[in-house]
Amino acid sequence: MLEALREEVYRANLLLVKHGLVIFTWGNVSGIDRERGLVVIKPSGVPYEELSPDNMVIVDMEGRVVEGDLRPSTDTPTHIELYKAFPTIGGVTHTHSTYATAYAQACRPIPAYGTTHADYFYGDIPCTRAMSEAEISGDYEAATGRVIAEALEGIDPLSMPAALVHSHGPFVWAKTPTRSAELAATLEEVARIAYLTEQLGGQNHIDGALLDKHFLRKHGSGAYYGQKSE
Amino acid sequence: MLEALREEVYRANLLLVKHGLVIFTWGNVSGIDRERGLVVIKPSGVPYEELSPDNMVIVDMEGRVVEGDLRPSTDTPTHIELYKAFPTIGGVTHTHSTYATAYAQACRPIPAYGTTHADYFYGDIPCTRAMSEAEISGDYEAATGRVIAEALEGIDPLSMPAALVHSHGPFVWAKTPTRSAELAATLEEVARIAYLTEQLGGQNHIDGALLDKHFLRKHGSGAYYGQKSE
Amino acid sequence: MLEALREEVYRANLLLVKHGLVIFTWGNVSGIDRERGLVVIKPSGVPYEELSPDNMVIVDMEGRVVEGDLRPSTDTPTHIELYKAFPTIGGVTHTHSTYATAYAQACRPIPAYGTTHADYFYGDIPCTRAMSEAEISGDYEAATGRVIAEALEGIDPLSMPAALVHSHGPFVWAKTPTRSAELAATLEEVARIAYLTEQLGGQNHIDGALLDKHFLRKHGSGAYYGQKSE
Amino acid sequence: MLEALREEVYRANLLLVKHGLVIFTWGNVSGIDRERGLVVIKPSGVPYEELSPDNMVIVDMEGRVVEGDLRPSTDTPTHIELYKAFPTIGGVTHTHSTYATAYAQACRPIPAYGTTHADYFYGDIPCTRAMSEAEISGDYEAATGRVIAEALEGIDPLSMPAALVHSHGPFVWAKTPTRSAELAATLEEVARIAYLTEQLGGQNHIDGALLDKHFLRKHGSGAYYGQKSE
Repeated sequence: MLEALREEVYRANLLLVKHGLVIFTWGNVSGIDRERGLVVIKPSGVPYEELSPDNMVIVDMEGRVVEGDLRPSTDTPTHIELYKAFPTIGGVTHTHSTYATAYAQACRPIPAYGTTHADYFYGDIPCTRAMSEAEISGDYEAATGRVIAEALEGIDPLSMPAALVHSHGPFVWAKTPTRSAELAATLEEVARIAYLTEQLGGQNHIDGALLDKHFLRKHGSGAYYGQKSE
Repeated sequence: MLEALREEVYRANLLLVKHGLVIFTWGNVSGIDRERGLVVIKPSGVPYEELSPDNMVIVDMEGRVVEGDLRPSTDTPTHIELYKAFPTIGGVTHTHSTYATAYAQACRPIPAYGTTHADYFYGDIPCTRAMSEAEISGDYEAATGRVIAEALEGIDPLSMPAALVHSHGPFVWAKTPTRSAELAATLEEVARIAYLTEQLGGQNHIDGALLDKHFLRKHGSGAYYGQKSE
Repeated sequence: MLEALREEVYRANLLLVKHGLVIFTWGNVSGIDRERGLVVIKPSGVPYEELSPDNMVIVDMEGRVVEGDLRPSTDTPTHIELYKAFPTIGGVTHTHSTYATAYAQACRPIPAYGTTHADYFYGDIPCTRAMSEAEISGDYEAATGRVIAEALEGIDPLSMPAALVHSHGPFVWAKTPTRSAELAATLEEVARIAYLTEQLGGQNHIDGALLDKHFLRKHGSGAYYGQKSE
Repeated sequence: MLEALREEVYRANLLLVKHGLVIFTWGNVSGIDRERGLVVIKPSGVPYEELSPDNMVIVDMEGRVVEGDLRPSTDTPTHIELYKAFPTIGGVTHTHSTYATAYAQACRPIPAYGTTHADYFYGDIPCTRAMSEAEISGDYEAATGRVIAEALEGIDPLSMPAALVHSHGPFVWAKTPTRSAELAATLEEVARIAYLTEQLGGQNHIDGALLDKHFLRKHGSGAYYGQKSE
């Protein structure tokens, strides 16, 4: 079932290793089949070198396993909440990548300091509020998804395809699983440059016109970056 | 003698290289056979590329060589003290990994700033007190083990499987040698993210409920991370 | 057409990957044939692993494609402006390399702190002024080249072969495309050491006599570094 | 001539690449044959991948080429001054390794903060004074050697086998070329940990008794680290 999506989600999980975003089992990618309402996701706690398209897990929108012998990622309910909140997205990636996680632990958004940021993220990358004790002791992983959606309220999730979860780390999303994994690598590099910018005394947000120019030359109807078929 | 343990200790020593925790001969892993009261440990000053299961050294609980042509690691008495102090552990790893050593040199515990930390370490990772001149000029390596045990007093060593030795570097332990080496890699990444968090102005410990949630979803009877067989 | 230059520009683009200066498609190298008035440049948005000498794009000095099926880099007008402003250069490289970009985002020149810097850059590496809204909304990429030329006014571009674009990142140039890519790697390392120097409390510019000594033992008629044929 | 030394110096130069201490041609290792009064050193400006035992250059103690078709490293007079000043050493390494160079640019010694440092360097690693204009415009490279020797005055060069040259970078020496290259890697890691220690607020030198313990358990007649044959 869902052979092509299994294959893509499998490959997108390996991108996390390729881009140095994870050690051990510290990250996961999922993809959704919107028509069937099914999500393909990494199994929980399985090392990347043991992954294959076959051991990806398929769950429904309530998180019940539909196909697969292994348990899905413990973060599955977070992914599902994001798919529910953001109907235009097709893939979700979660990592504990170093610099993005440091911003999350400092409980700070990542300010848009330059064009590298503006090429992919249309403004500051938000950090969620702290969760309440009730949320933590309740359906914690689903609540994590809800505070992300809350942080994105009124924002197009394809213009701001990432958020930092307070005291935790980044979640990233996109139209496809592959693209969400690539954006997770972009987020990490953007976070790293932002960190260094601040250590150098930089504190000025990118000029609004420059932010617009860079985001819009890559996204939307007026985009002119890349090849026409993209 | 102890073929399986020799093999595991050998492989665990190589994990230090794989995870970038050591250069030259700056780290060592040991494992214990509790029934026989014997410890298998890396030989002193031998480069990792020259290691084999055969040149691991077997010592008894007084540190006397029982099998092996080479001298054991100079840190052997520290390992033995830890095995004596913590009866539930089966492996010990010592490294001079960069960020964990920096915290040790700054004589500071590593604060629990986020969930990456909480997934493995149930609270701040302690730093030992400075050793006295008598301890340093006496049985220095054994005394090192004793100040670690002192820093862990009243704490379950499997809930807090690491400590920083003042002005020196980290020691890490676990149920198995392999697991202790993996935790040494985890400690280094946790230290690195903590460092960056502080540079970004972060200074808030993780919320207590969130610390509990993350540690306990991976450890103990209520754990639900990973596959059932783990 | 321009087989040798195509080949060199292709190889110089791969140097960006080799030296860790780019992820995804975040950089580009071009070279110029001064006699024919033609520029060879990387196609826009094409991953480095898909590049070949054949898919390099040839444009004229107005940026019109003369040969090639793909669109040239969106930064092509910046490259062309630099070739027009600096008649002695033969290659241009643009990256978003981490430390150089951090200085650009902090809107600061890179101070000449030591001999590593002085071996390649004859003074502080300038940062351009912020661009006006008219420049950003007008012919943005060409305007980027013009503000770089403005920052170099009165300076020999072969003595100062780089500039940081305000809120953006570095552009580097040299007599050949290969050399410009190598200088982009040098710039990144020089920026990284400058960053660390400042964090350590260093704030003294290199002594003027030492700056002269190091730059001039490698450049100009009195140079004595390297082999005679160089 | 000097086949064995050529081979060792060649291999020691490659260690600089292996340990990530150099890019391009930014470092050099030499070795001395004390009986013959000849020094084998890397040729100037030749990339490491083009080195071979055969293209190492042999010079006498006045820096005149005795054998070899290429020019020797421009730093050759510095190496020779060190061999003259320190009769017990057999190899010298110079790099621009990142963290050690940052300390040199900040014009600061590297404080002995912990046991990693104390295992190899018996106290703070000195930084030379700034050179005078006369020294810079005169026999600059030889003068560089002389200010290093001045900074080591009254110190056993085998107990303190490195110095930082003001505004420049590190020189390292040892009984053999191989060992000097390995110590250059050690110095870089020690500098990196010292940097991080300071950023974390650490400012306490290692206790004197602990410094003694660690240096002396590895060096001198009472040493007990490593295997007996070492």
